[in-house]
Amino acid sequence: MGKSLAYPKRVSNTANRYNHRATYDLGAIHSIINSSQVLHVSFNPGPSDPFPAILPMIGQMGSFDYPSAGIDEPLDCYLHGYVSSRIMNLARAAEGDGLPICVAASKVDGLILSLTPNSHSYNYRSAILHGYAKLVIDEAEKLWAMELITNSVLSDRWRHSRVPPDKAEMSSTVILKVKVVDGSGKIRDGGVSDEKKDKDNAEVTERVWTGVVPVWETFGEPIPSPLNKVEGIPEYITSYVASQSQQNQAYAKSAVGIPLPKEEDH
Amino acid sequence: MGKSLAYPKRVSNTANRYNHRATYDLGAIHSIINSSQVLHVSFNPGPSDPFPAILPMIGQMGSFDYPSAGIDEPLDCYLHGYVSSRIMNLARAAEGDGLPICVAASKVDGLILSLTPNSHSYNYRSAILHGYAKLVIDEAEKLWAMELITNSVLSDRWRHSRVPPDKAEMSSTVILKVKVVDGSGKIRDGGVSDEKKDKDNAEVTERVWTGVVPVWETFGEPIPSPLNKVEGIPEYITSYVASQSQQNQAYAKSAVGIPLPKEEDH
Repeated sequence: MGKSLAYPKRVSNTANRYNHRATYDLGAIHSIINSSQVLHVSFNPGPSDPFPAILPMIGQMGSFDYPSAGIDEPLDCYLHGYVSSRIMNLARAAEGDGLPICVAASKVDGLILSLTPNSHSYNYRSAILHGYAKLVIDEAEKLWAMELITNSVLSDRWRHSRVPPDKAEMSSTVILKVKVVDGSGKIRDGGVSDEKKDKDNAEVTERVWTGVVPVWETFGEPIPSPLNKVEGIPEYITSYVASQSQQNQAYAKSAVGIPLPKEEDH
Repeated sequence: MGKSLAYPKRVSNTANRYNHRATYDLGAIHSIINSSQVLHVSFNPGPSDPFPAILPMIGQMGSFDYPSAGIDEPLDCYLHGYVSSRIMNLARAAEGDGLPICVAASKVDGLILSLTPNSHSYNYRSAILHGYAKLVIDEAEKLWAMELITNSVLSDRWRHSRVPPDKAEMSSTVILKVKVVDGSGKIRDGGVSDEKKDKDNAEVTERVWTGVVPVWETFGEPIPSPLNKVEGIPEYITSYVASQSQQNQAYAKSAVGIPLPKEEDH
């Protein structure tokens, strides 16, 4: 197996706690970003405002120049937005490398119920990226990114919808391309972790239930629009919905790390 | 009914698009924050770093001075962290009002599959707060906030765990109190929304399935730790897990706004 690529460690992205949970691996970080429906994007509105801003946005990692690049290779982050939104105006006006932003995604996979409040936690996966954002000007790249992002809402949806976008749709949509400077992720999995002093205290262990509540995102039965004219629900939708729910549930349960009852040995 | 409180509108928190989805209502914003397991907190690391930082944190809205304050009344945001983390060091060193931060939470409630990629969307709820963060020094307030935050992981968990925290636990834990300056929220619900030109185009409507896939967070069956000594799963845990899953599912389905098949009329 080849060496996996990692983001450089800088002060701003280096975790100083729970190092065993930190990752700088491109594949792990990009996967967390790509499987998150909403990304939180932070930027500074300007010198007159002391507060950083955070916007919920839709986005995906990808490479227009090397479309066959794997998830563990260098990728850009493409973010979808509206032409007149504040972040787009700032990115349009940004000089040099572009607008410095931070992109974050987090998922909770379980509640860790341990003996003491301090050792309570979540099983979770989180990732952040730092980079410089610029508007995508090239029409072919913009169209490619729009397809990438639409298919992140539901796999293979783009070609099953009315495409290509018309001129008005192309001009009202803006795609930000983030050149990633660094990134990091944290993955917490496993079961309950308590200190010896509490584990040895029978008064506590006989009273406090400990364990994990797995948590996952369920995709429900698709509900047709009153205006929908297509009979039945297309297979690419039903199979996506079923596989997402199943994968999410399987991950949350496997993250606990406790062997679950099996039907048979294998 | 009384008048509900709203956050003031400033440039930095005023939505300039989809205004019908924007809310400045304290109750709506605080509810989104309090029902989110992970908050994303943004701050500026310092003049040498061009990028804002984002940290995933656990937090809750509450009022130590007026513990009986309702969710729609002025509240502070309490965030839980580790004593030596960067945000805590910055907040400790901050002069004046405290460290300017932004707190964000977002939840996806459904995939909106419409005729064109541009009208694809999510049903979602998101909220942001801007405010000044300071470390809680008062021991009674700190303990109160720790209980508030532990019970946000699982309702009523605090008194069922080993409390109070000992001296070492109290000193390794830091609570940030955010004095909120402004906030805003966005709530998108309903079904598919398409433009007339596409709705009138039979070639498109006969080919493209439209509708909503409801999405919600499921809490699975609690899995006991190998070291757990309590027989059976306590009722406060099973009832919380069941009610969360049920409420989340009910919200995601009701957000679609399409009457679902009923067992009987009422």
